[in-house]
Formats: sequence, C-alpha cells, structure tokens
Amino acid sequence: MSPSAKENGSNGVSANGHDAVPDVAEVQLPQVEGEWTVDKVLDALPGDKPTEGTTSPLAFFHILEKLKTNKREGWRRFGINRGESISDHMYRMSLISMLAPPALASKLDMAKCMKMCLIHDMAESIVGDITPVDGVPKQEKSRREATTMDYITKGLLGNVDGGKVGEEIRAIWQEYEDSKTLESHYVHDIDKMELLLQMVEYEKRGDHKLDLGEFAYVKTRIVLPEIQAWADDLLKEWNAYWVGHEHVRGDKAVESSGVSAQKKAMQDNYYNKE
Amino acid sequence: MSPSAKENGSNGVSANGHDAVPDVAEVQLPQVEGEWTVDKVLDALPGDKPTEGTTSPLAFFHILEKLKTNKREGWRRFGINRGESISDHMYRMSLISMLAPPALASKLDMAKCMKMCLIHDMAESIVGDITPVDGVPKQEKSRREATTMDYITKGLLGNVDGGKVGEEIRAIWQEYEDSKTLESHYVHDIDKMELLLQMVEYEKRGDHKLDLGEFAYVKTRIVLPEIQAWADDLLKEWNAYWVGHEHVRGDKAVESSGVSAQKKAMQDNYYNKE
Repeated sequence: MSPSAKENGSNGVSANGHDAVPDVAEVQLPQVEGEWTVDKVLDALPGDKPTEGTTSPLAFFHILEKLKTNKREGWRRFGINRGESISDHMYRMSLISMLAPPALASKLDMAKCMKMCLIHDMAESIVGDITPVDGVPKQEKSRREATTMDYITKGLLGNVDGGKVGEEIRAIWQEYEDSKTLESHYVHDIDKMELLLQMVEYEKRGDHKLDLGEFAYVKTRIVLPEIQAWADDLLKEWNAYWVGHEHVRGDKAVESSGVSAQKKAMQDNYYNKE
Repeated sequence: MSPSAKENGSNGVSANGHDAVPDVAEVQLPQVEGEWTVDKVLDALPGDKPTEGTTSPLAFFHILEKLKTNKREGWRRFGINRGESISDHMYRMSLISMLAPPALASKLDMAKCMKMCLIHDMAESIVGDITPVDGVPKQEKSRREATTMDYITKGLLGNVDGGKVGEEIRAIWQEYEDSKTLESHYVHDIDKMELLLQMVEYEKRGDHKLDLGEFAYVKTRIVLPEIQAWADDLLKEWNAYWVGHEHVRGDKAVESSGVSAQKKAMQDNYYNKE
C-alpha cells in the first residue's frame, strides 16, 4: 500500500506527537434496547449518521468498512478475539468460487456466484454476526438482516445512478437467503468450506492446544458433491495434524460436533431453511 | 457465522481448558536473508510447505488465508497495528467497483474489474505489503510479486482442472501491473479511493489526534474523472471533520502530502509506471 511503512516500532503514539489516540481500528456495534432497528444502531454509533437518498455512493462505501471492523464471532469463545473480519471471510469465498470444477462451473452463472460471495453477509455490517447460540430467533435474525439490506440498497443506494446497483445487490442477497437456485446452494457450500478451512488453519497454529472441532459440524450440511470432496481432502489434512494427540472432538466431530444435544438443536435450526 | 458465539468473556484460555494457546490469528511473514525467493519464505513459515502440482485447490485456498493475517503496513507507523488486512482492502474495492457510473461502466468489462480488485494484491500473501518508503527497489518488488504469482497460479493451480483458472488469475494480475487497459486504470483508481476512505474513517475515530493526511497524496494520482469526483466528495467530508481543529497536514495535504521532498520522490517513483 502507500505511502508509508513501518519505520518505527509502534507504540500507540501517533506520528504527529499526540498520545492517547483511540484505537481507531476497533469498533463495537452498540447493544440496542427494545425492538431492534437500523436507526437505533446508527444513532448509537459514533460519527455522523449517513445521509440517505443522495446520488453519491460514499455513504455505502463507509458502511462497508464495518465489515472490516466487525469480526467473525464464532472464534471469540475460543479466545480468538482479533481473528478474521467478516470481509476477510467473504473475500476468500469469492476466490474459492472461481475454482468450481468445470462440470459444475458450466451450470453456474459464475459472475453472480462471485458477487453472491461478496454480498451474502453484507447485512452484518449493521446487524453484527449472529450465531446459532446467541438466542436470537431465526425469524428475528432474518428480519434484522432484510431490514438492513433494504436500508443499504434503497436508503443509501436508491438514488445512485437510478438505484440499479442497489437493486442488483438486494436481489442477489435475497437469492442467497431463499436458497433455491444452484448458485445459492454453491455459495452456501462455499460459506461452510471457508469456515472449515479457517478452523483447520487456526488449529494448526494452536500447538495442539486449540480444539475448534465443534465447527466441523457444518461439513454435514454441505450439499454439492464437488464441495464435499474439497472438505473431505481438508479433513484428511486435519486428521493428519491430530495424529498422536488427543483431539477433544475427535473423529466423531463431523457427526456429532462433540456438542450438547441442545446446541446441536440450535445449529440444526440455524441451518434448516424455513 | 456458525456455530458458536461469545458466551464467555474472552481471556485467552481456550474452551477445552488448556491455557497458553498461541495467538493463532497473528502470523508474521519471515525476514529472508540474501536474495528473496518464494521458497525461502515458505521454508521459514510454520507448518507444512504446500504441495505443488496437485489436482486439488486446497493449497491455494490456504495461501489466501495469508491475505487475512497480513495487515496493511501503511497504518502501522501511526500506531494502528491491528488495522485492516490486505483482504479487507481488496474486499471493499470489489464492491466499490460495482458502482461505476453507467457511462463508465458501459466501457468496462465489469466482471473482470471485480476479479482484478480481488486479485491485484494477491502476491502480498507471500511477499508482504511493500510500501514506498521500505527501501525495496521497484524492480525488485515487481520481481518478487511476479515470482509469487507464478508460484501461486502455476505451482499451486497449474494442475487444477487443467490450470485454466490459474492462467486467468495470472493474466488479470499482469493486466493490472501493466496498467495499459481502461479496466486496469479503473482498478488502480479504486485502489487509491479505498485508501482515502480508510484514511478518513480512521481519522474520524481518532478524536482529532490522529492525522493521516500524508496518504491524501494518492488523490493526485487518480486518473479517471468519475473516481476523482468520488474523492472530491470524500475530501469535502474530511475537511468538514477538521474544521476548528489544527490539521497537521492541512489543506495542502493533497498537493504536498506535507511530506519531505525525499519521501515525495519515493512516492512518485512508486506510482510512476516503468
């Protein structure tokens, strides 16, 4: 990037000589009292509220920054507090989508799949990353996310070049949510594959002390055989890493995730379509 | 994401009861002695070296993780150590690319632009983020990046489905580097626009104590009027934020970046094409 570099050891003192600069890379989404609305979140966030209805896409660009500052929540319970961001996750998904084996690729609108990878978690910019054990009912999660996508694509992008790009983003997001097309099934599978990759990668740097096997559950929900084959290869690599070490979730992780019946019910509910 | 959530306050103790789990989300690229090669970096990284020449894309998927763990270097000198990742940056660029005003969009291969946004910094997975003041000559930077792209697209992807996707990625990366097509000019401009957005966003959370005006220099290198118009709007927002406060780089930041003649020469060299 440009134009600066790591000239000094970093010490939290800004280059202009002031100290006590806030940690500008950390932004917590506010907790909302009562019914959740986009407005309540935006009102509670620092800085000016974005202006709706303008012809400039700037406010949209700013909202996208929250996909960098919001981290994927699932890892936090395992002490990984500064792990990947939501945009990190969607980034790799988009590249993975390019690697569809030719027989599958020929049946897919590949450009749409790439966009779907980049859009499917966009609502988490304002909603945050709600996970199966957060206690937010599935319908309420969907309501928050759909409301947010309306805000982004109509409120912020509705008057930008006639709102066409906003409409496209909204439609692709809905197609992912509805999960009826082959493209949406493919991207749902990539979503799970990307999670499994990150699980294995974090574990491999964990000196056999970090056991994220609970996440292996998602492999059972992959539907396309091509992605299942990738996941099979990955789990061979995973098992090889754990040879000679006690792996808390063990070989049954994929079937049972080693989690309680209650948590499994939450996961099933999360992944079952309405 | 799935399936876990922030049930506990995080304390660095993993859920399986072990402590002293390494910080698995932080990975430093190793320093290389003598001539820089991909092999030397891979040999020095923890974990198994990726297997080249396989028919599986798994090794490629793993390399992409380094775009999450490698952070953008420019912010570090200002104390922002846990800022955006390289993939965070490319992620937002890809979404920005969708917003090309219609008159410009009609002249562009938009699907290729999106891929170029997602690919253009891919070599930084292994090379790292070399900045203008790092002292690495431009030709050497290019050599490292081209070598890395060969490794990724031929070494890791050469036998995956006949190597077609690898070839496509390599060609798009080269087109960006050569910077001769309208698509490449557009993506170069988006690269700068994304940097300016992040500069303003970090500053706005810095309580008027963080001055990143040095980066505003890149605005002078934007070539397309459509992107220049976005940057103009953004800098109006920036100036409004600083009203009533001393801004070290000040209104002249865009022209002079407030940086020394020596650093400006480095920046010019960095952004001038060979």
